[in-house]
Amino acid sequence: MSDSDDSDDYVVEIDVRLRDIDFMGHVNNATYATYLEEARQAYFSDVVGVSLVDVGTVLANMEIDYSSPIEADADVTVALRATEIGTSSLPIEYEIRADGKRAATARTVQVLVDRETGNSEPIPDDWRTRIDAAGE
Amino acid sequence: MSDSDDSDDYVVEIDVRLRDIDFMGHVNNATYATYLEEARQAYFSDVVGVSLVDVGTVLANMEIDYSSPIEADADVTVALRATEIGTSSLPIEYEIRADGKRAATARTVQVLVDRETGNSEPIPDDWRTRIDAAGE
Amino acid sequence: MSDSDDSDDYVVEIDVRLRDIDFMGHVNNATYATYLEEARQAYFSDVVGVSLVDVGTVLANMEIDYSSPIEADADVTVALRATEIGTSSLPIEYEIRADGKRAATARTVQVLVDRETGNSEPIPDDWRTRIDAAGE
Amino acid sequence: MSDSDDSDDYVVEIDVRLRDIDFMGHVNNATYATYLEEARQAYFSDVVGVSLVDVGTVLANMEIDYSSPIEADADVTVALRATEIGTSSLPIEYEIRADGKRAATARTVQVLVDRETGNSEPIPDDWRTRIDAAGE
Repeated sequence: MSDSDDSDDYVVEIDVRLRDIDFMGHVNNATYATYLEEARQAYFSDVVGVSLVDVGTVLANMEIDYSSPIEADADVTVALRATEIGTSSLPIEYEIRADGKRAATARTVQVLVDRETGNSEPIPDDWRTRIDAAGE
Repeated sequence: MSDSDDSDDYVVEIDVRLRDIDFMGHVNNATYATYLEEARQAYFSDVVGVSLVDVGTVLANMEIDYSSPIEADADVTVALRATEIGTSSLPIEYEIRADGKRAATARTVQVLVDRETGNSEPIPDDWRTRIDAAGE
Repeated sequence: MSDSDDSDDYVVEIDVRLRDIDFMGHVNNATYATYLEEARQAYFSDVVGVSLVDVGTVLANMEIDYSSPIEADADVTVALRATEIGTSSLPIEYEIRADGKRAATARTVQVLVDRETGNSEPIPDDWRTRIDAAGE
Repeated sequence: MSDSDDSDDYVVEIDVRLRDIDFMGHVNNATYATYLEEARQAYFSDVVGVSLVDVGTVLANMEIDYSSPIEADADVTVALRATEIGTSSLPIEYEIRADGKRAATARTVQVLVDRETGNSEPIPDDWRTRIDAAGE
């Protein structure tokens, strides 16, 4: 994110599990994707007011820029912000922080789908309202 | 544990990740072992005063009795208690709870080892003191 | 298993992933439970002739005895054998091997359930026939 | 990759684990990153002739485009190709396939580092030779 101190960011604390640590003593690179998902899970529950388990969303795209390794005992947080909501797509920008410092930045594009058919669905207006309210 | 309400139990809150949920909508059975590890990790840090990353311990045995499935949105805690510490071995009993109700009980035996040689090492006296103090 | 060379054992090769390796350079202890599940998955597909994704089974109990750590580059196999099938329960014994040597033994009890109600269901006769044929 | 049938691609078979499957019955999105890592692990072992466990590499960037979900029982392969090797960086392009059809494309940039200092290191000439030979 261009402004990592932006007070509009929603911040999620991540419990680093020993299982997340690789043979080099750092959080495994693939686990970052799980941390992003955990942050989305909290964001949807707290801000959008729905559980990701109850709605159908799929990832269309994920990009992660790794800045510095995360040590096993670091305090990890993920700050995130929804940006430019589309008809069915919800782009989110993230910063993963270890002990308060940027460890990675990331971006995902998530699409709302009908869980039976897999077809994309329009994002409900009340989602937009709540996401906009959180980002102001 | 025979007495799941024992106030001596050390209790750890677990953040259930979407990644933990299986195709049946429950926490995957193998993930319980990770929750036990996360509970040990917190216990060692808080009670024993050492990080599991810094000391060498290996599991000798693990047994899990699954009582009822854990739903994706449950509040999960792990209560644990060290029992009968041996020369090098540290048995721990656990109860995994979902929304306050028993979901599983478990028991592990952990052995302190020299990280270079892999040989077992005696558990330090100050560990025993702190574990005993926590269990009183 | 009492006889690890028994030719009746069903043997599954496991691809060890870097993600499975812990900070000590060994396969993480909780990952053993995933290896057991992967072995069951292959056994059900090959021997029982059903996919674990299509039938409802839950674990009732799992016990693992860890003998020696599994190195990151080891060739890992899991040998398994169904034993004493009950009305709804299917006990399985395992040996996890690294480079041909025993790394762990394990035992699980799995229960066939109705996926809608969660109630136990009797194991079909054709499952018994195929499991018996494989174990002879 | 622009040409998914290119015979120069190195192809790795992935064993999909039940643990990889999410509550929607598909391979979890974060697990794709683990599949990429498993593909790199095989590529380094087979083509470069070194084990990723023995050398120090870190990911600088990862991007995944998800095309279609991967079902639990799909046969999954990852085709990969090294491109434009830099001084210390090794970009790789991937196609993840389910039952032979594209499920995702991805790109990673990996950097060779000194495991003690974390500083980047030049990619050895014999690596370049072997990578070039594989890609011809």
